[in-house]
Amino acid sequence: MTLSEIAKIIGAEFSGVDKEIISMNTLSDATSNQLSFVSNKKYIKNIAASKAGAIIIDEKMQDQIPEGCVAFIVKNPYWEMAELSKSFAPLIEDDSLPLAVIGEGSRISAKSEIANGAIIGKNCTIMAHVYIGAEANIGDNTIIYPNTTVYRDCLIGTDCIIHSNTAIGADGFGFATNALGEHKKIYQNGNVIIEDDVEIGSNVSVDRAVFGSTLIKHGVRIDNLVQIGHNCEIGEYSVFVAQSGTAGSTTLGRNVVVGGQSAFAGHLNIAPFSQFAARSGITNDIKEPGKTYGGFPLLEQRRWLKLQVKIARLLK
Amino acid sequence: MTLSEIAKIIGAEFSGVDKEIISMNTLSDATSNQLSFVSNKKYIKNIAASKAGAIIIDEKMQDQIPEGCVAFIVKNPYWEMAELSKSFAPLIEDDSLPLAVIGEGSRISAKSEIANGAIIGKNCTIMAHVYIGAEANIGDNTIIYPNTTVYRDCLIGTDCIIHSNTAIGADGFGFATNALGEHKKIYQNGNVIIEDDVEIGSNVSVDRAVFGSTLIKHGVRIDNLVQIGHNCEIGEYSVFVAQSGTAGSTTLGRNVVVGGQSAFAGHLNIAPFSQFAARSGITNDIKEPGKTYGGFPLLEQRRWLKLQVKIARLLK
Amino acid sequence: MTLSEIAKIIGAEFSGVDKEIISMNTLSDATSNQLSFVSNKKYIKNIAASKAGAIIIDEKMQDQIPEGCVAFIVKNPYWEMAELSKSFAPLIEDDSLPLAVIGEGSRISAKSEIANGAIIGKNCTIMAHVYIGAEANIGDNTIIYPNTTVYRDCLIGTDCIIHSNTAIGADGFGFATNALGEHKKIYQNGNVIIEDDVEIGSNVSVDRAVFGSTLIKHGVRIDNLVQIGHNCEIGEYSVFVAQSGTAGSTTLGRNVVVGGQSAFAGHLNIAPFSQFAARSGITNDIKEPGKTYGGFPLLEQRRWLKLQVKIARLLK
Repeated sequence: MTLSEIAKIIGAEFSGVDKEIISMNTLSDATSNQLSFVSNKKYIKNIAASKAGAIIIDEKMQDQIPEGCVAFIVKNPYWEMAELSKSFAPLIEDDSLPLAVIGEGSRISAKSEIANGAIIGKNCTIMAHVYIGAEANIGDNTIIYPNTTVYRDCLIGTDCIIHSNTAIGADGFGFATNALGEHKKIYQNGNVIIEDDVEIGSNVSVDRAVFGSTLIKHGVRIDNLVQIGHNCEIGEYSVFVAQSGTAGSTTLGRNVVVGGQSAFAGHLNIAPFSQFAARSGITNDIKEPGKTYGGFPLLEQRRWLKLQVKIARLLK
Repeated sequence: MTLSEIAKIIGAEFSGVDKEIISMNTLSDATSNQLSFVSNKKYIKNIAASKAGAIIIDEKMQDQIPEGCVAFIVKNPYWEMAELSKSFAPLIEDDSLPLAVIGEGSRISAKSEIANGAIIGKNCTIMAHVYIGAEANIGDNTIIYPNTTVYRDCLIGTDCIIHSNTAIGADGFGFATNALGEHKKIYQNGNVIIEDDVEIGSNVSVDRAVFGSTLIKHGVRIDNLVQIGHNCEIGEYSVFVAQSGTAGSTTLGRNVVVGGQSAFAGHLNIAPFSQFAARSGITNDIKEPGKTYGGFPLLEQRRWLKLQVKIARLLK
Repeated sequence: MTLSEIAKIIGAEFSGVDKEIISMNTLSDATSNQLSFVSNKKYIKNIAASKAGAIIIDEKMQDQIPEGCVAFIVKNPYWEMAELSKSFAPLIEDDSLPLAVIGEGSRISAKSEIANGAIIGKNCTIMAHVYIGAEANIGDNTIIYPNTTVYRDCLIGTDCIIHSNTAIGADGFGFATNALGEHKKIYQNGNVIIEDDVEIGSNVSVDRAVFGSTLIKHGVRIDNLVQIGHNCEIGEYSVFVAQSGTAGSTTLGRNVVVGGQSAFAGHLNIAPFSQFAARSGITNDIKEPGKTYGGFPLLEQRRWLKLQVKIARLLK
C-alpha cells in the first residue's frame, strides 16, 4: 500500500513523495518500508530512533518524528492503526498459492485440510480434521493430533507433538476502543513460531503476534488448556502446567516452570530457571534467576508459605 | 405434548381438559401453552402471577397455583422437570429439514458440515471442519475458523469472527440430583444468540440456555478459553480476557471488562462499565456502574491493593 | 521386547536368561512379564514386594531387588524409563487392524473418522469431525458431538454424552528432565476409561494414563474447560464445575463436588461427598467424608468465610 493510500484510509494529510509500505511494525522494529504508530506517551522516547518509513502520531508528539520519516497526524493514532491493520491482513486462504508440498513419508489424513501454500516436512503425521493454513510450515517428524488448527503463516519445527483441539495462531486479543466504548479489531498480522522438540497439550491456545512472532523455543512443554498471548517469547525447555497462561508480550527465559492455573501479566521479563507454584499471579519482572515463587500477589514461595501461617493465626 | 402425556411421564394425576404444551419455561416467562415448575421456596412469590398453562409443584405449595393453571403435584418437582425435559428436546440433527441455505458470496469449505435447516448469510467464510447445526443462522460477513462447532438453533449475527475449536451452544451444565446422589440430565432446550460485530477467541465455551437464550450482545470481545454459562446475558462491548468465565444466569451491563482468570457466580447482575482486575471472584451483584474491583472475596481494586499491603505486614 | 533388547536401549548390563517384556508398569502393579523402575527414594519400600520381571534402578538401591527379578542398573532410572517408554508405545493408527465395527442403529457422520480397530455400540450418534482412535470402544446410546477426539484404546461406556472440542485420551503430561534441563517424553501408554451415564462438557481434556487407566466412574458430570490429569480416578456421580481441574494420580470418592476454577494437586485421596467451593486449592488428602471446603490454602468453608472477615478487618 502506498503512503497516499494510507493517508486516505486514516484521514491524514500527506503531500510528500509517495512510496510503498509493506506492513506495520513497532517503533523499534519498523524499517523504512514499514509503518509504525505512537499511541502512548511512554513510547515517546522510541520515536527519534525509529527507522519507520512513516509514523501515525498525534499532533502533540509530531515534533519528535525523525528526519526522512513521514508523520501521519491523526486524533486517535491507536484507533487509526486498528483501522489500517485490516488493509495489511493477508487473505485467510489464498487459492492462488501453489498446492501444499508434502514431504516424503508423511502420513496425511484425507480428512485433514492442508491449505494452498503450506509445506509439510518428512515423516509427519497429520491426523483427521487437522487444519494447516496457508504458508504454514511443519517440520520433519512432527505429529499433529485430530481437530487441531494451525493458522496461516505459522511455523512449527521438527519433532514436535501437538495434541487435539489446540489452536496455533488464532488472533491475539487486540482492539482499539473509542470514547463511546466501541471496539475496532487490530488485525494480527504476525505469526507463531514453534521451534523443535516442543510438545503442546490439548485445548491449548497460542495466539499469533500482532506484528512479528509469538515464539515458543526449543524443548518447551505445554500442558492442556493453557493460554499463550500474542507476542510472548517462551524460553527453551520452559514448562507450563495445565490451565496456566500468560498475557501478551511477556518473555520467559529458559527452563521457567509455571504451575497449574498460574498466570503472567503482559509485557514482563522473567529470569531463566524461575519456578512458580500452582496459581501464582505474576505481575512484575523477575530479575534474579532460579528462585521459586508463589501466591498472588507474588512472593518467594517460602515467604508465601510463612505468610499463610500468619494469616491462619487470625482465626484464633 | 399434551397435558395428559406429561402427567403420565412424571407420574402426576390429571383429569382436566387436555391441551397441547409446546415447551418448558420459567414461572415468569412461561405462557399458556408452556409448562413450568417450582423447585425452590424462593420462587413461591412468582407462582401466583405465572401465566404458565401448567406447573409441576409439590403438595405444600399447590395452593399458590393461579386459577386456570393446571397443577401437576409430584414429590420432587426438579427431578420430574429433568425427566420431562428430554421429551421436549429437538432432534440433534433432523434430516427432514430442508437443505441449508447459503448466501451469495459465502466461502464454505467442502470439509465443513452445514446441517439441514441451517442458514448462512452472504459473504461468510466457513472453514474446514466447522459444524453448523440444524436451524442455526449465521449473519452476513461472519468468519468461522476451523474446528469450531455451532450447535443447532444458535444464531450468530453479522460481521462476527469466531476462532478455532470454540463451542457455541453446547448444553448448559444442568441436572437434578436425587437423595441417592444420582443425577438426571436437564435437557438444555434453549439456544445461544450472538449479536453483530462480536469476536470470540479459540477454545471458548458458550453454553446454550436451558430455556430461552444465552445472549452475547453487540460488539462483545471474548478472548481464549473463556466459559460463558447458560442463560447469561453479556452487555454490549463487554470484554472477557483469557481463562475468565461466568456461571449461569448472570447478566452483565454494557462495557464490563473482565480480567484474565476472573469468574462470576451465577444469577448476578453487574452494572455497566464495571471493571474487574485479573483473577477477580465476583459473588454479589454490582449496582453502581463504572467502578473497578479485584480480589476474591471481591473489593474495590484500590482497597484490595491496600489490603495486600496490610497482609504483607504480617510477615514482619 | 526382550530383556536383552531393553538392556541395549538403556545402556544397562544384562547377562541372565532372556525373556519377553510386554509393557511397563508401577512397582506395585507390574507382573512378571512387565518392567518397572525406581526413580524416587520414597518408593524403596515397594521394591521388595514388586512382582515385576525387571526393574530399572540405580546402583544404590539395587540390593532391594527381590529374588528372580532382573535389575537394570543405570545412572538415571527416570530418564531411561522415559527413553524406553517410546519402544512400548503402540502405533498412533494401525492400518493392519480390522475395519471399525459399528453397532446397529448408530448414526455415524460421513465426516467423522473412525479408525481401524474401533468398536461403536448400538444407537450411538457420532457427529461430524469426531475422531475415534484405534481400538477405542464406545458403548450403546452414547452421543459424541462434533470436533471431539477420542484417542486410541480409550473406552467410553453406554449412555454417555461428550460435547464438542473435547479431548479424551491425549497424552498425560509426563517427561524426565536431565541435569542440563532438557526434557524427554514419557510415552503415555495407558488409556482412559469412562463408565456409563457420564456427561462431559466442551473443551475438556481428560488425559490418558502413563500406565493403566485414567478412570471416570459411573454418573460423573464434567462441565466445560476442565482438566483431568493422567491416572486420576473420579468417583461415581462426582461433579466438576467449569475451569476446574486435577493434577495426575488423584483419586476422588463418590459424589465429590468441585467448584468452578478449583484444582487438586496430584497424588491425593479425597473422601466421598466432599464439597469444594469455587476456586478451592486442594493440596492434601481429605479423609473425613461429607465436609465442605474453600480457599487456597484450603480450609473448611465456614472457617474460610470467617477468616475472610478477619482479614478484611486489617483494612480498618
